[in-house]
Amino acid sequence: MQSFSSLSTQFEKQFEAVQFPKSPEGLYDPCRYILTIGGKRVRPVALLMGTELFNDIVSDAFHVANAIELFHNFTLMHDDIMDKAPLRRGVPTVSAKFGDSTALLAGDVMLISSYDLLNKLTGNYLSTVIALFNLTAKQVCEGQQLDIEFEKREMVTFDEYLNMITLKTSVLLAASLRLGAIVGGASLGNQNSLYKFGKNLGIAFQIQDDYLDAFGDPSKFGKQVGGDILSNKKTFLLIHALEVANAGQKSALQSLLQGNAPDKVEQVLKIFKDCKVDQWANELKDKYYTMAMEHLEEIAVLNSRKTELILLAKYLLQRDS
Amino acid sequence: MQSFSSLSTQFEKQFEAVQFPKSPEGLYDPCRYILTIGGKRVRPVALLMGTELFNDIVSDAFHVANAIELFHNFTLMHDDIMDKAPLRRGVPTVSAKFGDSTALLAGDVMLISSYDLLNKLTGNYLSTVIALFNLTAKQVCEGQQLDIEFEKREMVTFDEYLNMITLKTSVLLAASLRLGAIVGGASLGNQNSLYKFGKNLGIAFQIQDDYLDAFGDPSKFGKQVGGDILSNKKTFLLIHALEVANAGQKSALQSLLQGNAPDKVEQVLKIFKDCKVDQWANELKDKYYTMAMEHLEEIAVLNSRKTELILLAKYLLQRDS
Repeated sequence: MQSFSSLSTQFEKQFEAVQFPKSPEGLYDPCRYILTIGGKRVRPVALLMGTELFNDIVSDAFHVANAIELFHNFTLMHDDIMDKAPLRRGVPTVSAKFGDSTALLAGDVMLISSYDLLNKLTGNYLSTVIALFNLTAKQVCEGQQLDIEFEKREMVTFDEYLNMITLKTSVLLAASLRLGAIVGGASLGNQNSLYKFGKNLGIAFQIQDDYLDAFGDPSKFGKQVGGDILSNKKTFLLIHALEVANAGQKSALQSLLQGNAPDKVEQVLKIFKDCKVDQWANELKDKYYTMAMEHLEEIAVLNSRKTELILLAKYLLQRDS
Repeated sequence: MQSFSSLSTQFEKQFEAVQFPKSPEGLYDPCRYILTIGGKRVRPVALLMGTELFNDIVSDAFHVANAIELFHNFTLMHDDIMDKAPLRRGVPTVSAKFGDSTALLAGDVMLISSYDLLNKLTGNYLSTVIALFNLTAKQVCEGQQLDIEFEKREMVTFDEYLNMITLKTSVLLAASLRLGAIVGGASLGNQNSLYKFGKNLGIAFQIQDDYLDAFGDPSKFGKQVGGDILSNKKTFLLIHALEVANAGQKSALQSLLQGNAPDKVEQVLKIFKDCKVDQWANELKDKYYTMAMEHLEEIAVLNSRKTELILLAKYLLQRDS
């Protein structure tokens, strides 16, 4: 079994061979640009681990990993148009740098290109791979649509948010692992367990992401701490706080949301702590981590093959033990 | 061999079975909406004719025809965002009715769904079909990107415009015919000839479209006659006029383009006629029609099988003989 860093290096090396045509430059330069911005390549590496759980990593696994990474970058391009985002990973987004129309078209051509990569498969699972890829791609669009709708709504329940975030982010990690397993020749039962491992891990990661935005160490957290609070983003924390707060806390929270007090972040955090939202979020994250691990245990391969996936989970969830 | 109208009825009937999920409605209602706006369904019917040129029409042909029609509607959704178009076929565009973000996402999910339809193929040509579908889809994006770029440029040559319009519109008709031929089991040679028939026919159709916008009978032409002239659109006519006009005509044309004179359309049309642009356009259309017909003749099947494709060409190009 190979480590995340070893697989990441291998992935990156061969991913450079994914080329776009030279012309028209106006269309393909943005595609090249977004791929150079980088990223941790978590999904394609998870996919390779999904293959290696059952078999040696064959070239087909790299083709699907490349397709997943292109698909992920397509979603970033289109999301940044919708969010009018100026920056991604510290540099201008494609829409900010090249304009919305080009970002739209470049995203389209990148999505189409991901099917070119799938179409390189030599194994007898092209149709199975496309079916899961499509299902997941549609779910990601559904999650993004719900996210847009939730922004405009007054109230979102915990279950609604959980469903949205599962569609928008978790299923792509789950599908990456399962696509790797398909290429690796895994049984349906093992594929299902691995998918559930990925889905629960993805949810735990998202809970952590919401938690760190509020309670993270500013020196370690990549983004501005309190950003979600300042933008009134409906997160696991805010949704839960509104559900458990007493009448006084709830009305204080709602007037804070409606205003822009200079100490808005501190005041909201105080209410979160009074409602024990921080403790609740950590327990919820642990619950999903535990469920992920139980699904990993179900998979009928030698335990020694699972080591790197356990390390991946701990790495994503910043766990020491 | 079945007529356009018979195939169109059959296509429409089974196309109704292409369903989108009920929820989230915010994402899938726009998909349902654009399909009810209708359209002539030229591409899917051409595809079915491509199959019937060589064989009986099997269910696989309908799957690919459905995918082509979904793809075409995806391009309409995204084009209307880029063009900020308020209306399509007399009713509000998806972007005008549901907003740009939803039109973007609904377009994405419709493109993904077209691959779901391709993935229903039972014949041994899934990979061949996806390869041509992808190539064509990327070319359509390239054509749209060039169209956007040309709008901002001072000068566009005839060859550049021809290339753009071929990518943006002709290759999809050509590919539809060829995809039908693939499903029908045609030889590579026959596939190539049919593709060239469609490509030249598409170019002839586009020349006619530009011609009718300027010289068409307002009572028969669906759109406002002179619309291209009013919006300074670079068309076959304008590009050719700027290439053949003498110094006086050219400077008159350029000052007309820069202004908004009340008789702009009449004055530009007068220069077009002085430069014999109308005659040139009709000859050019005939040239591409003739080339299309020559490629149709190359196809090694009984002449009697070609009747409906000849009628399709005449219908598209409004020819009596």
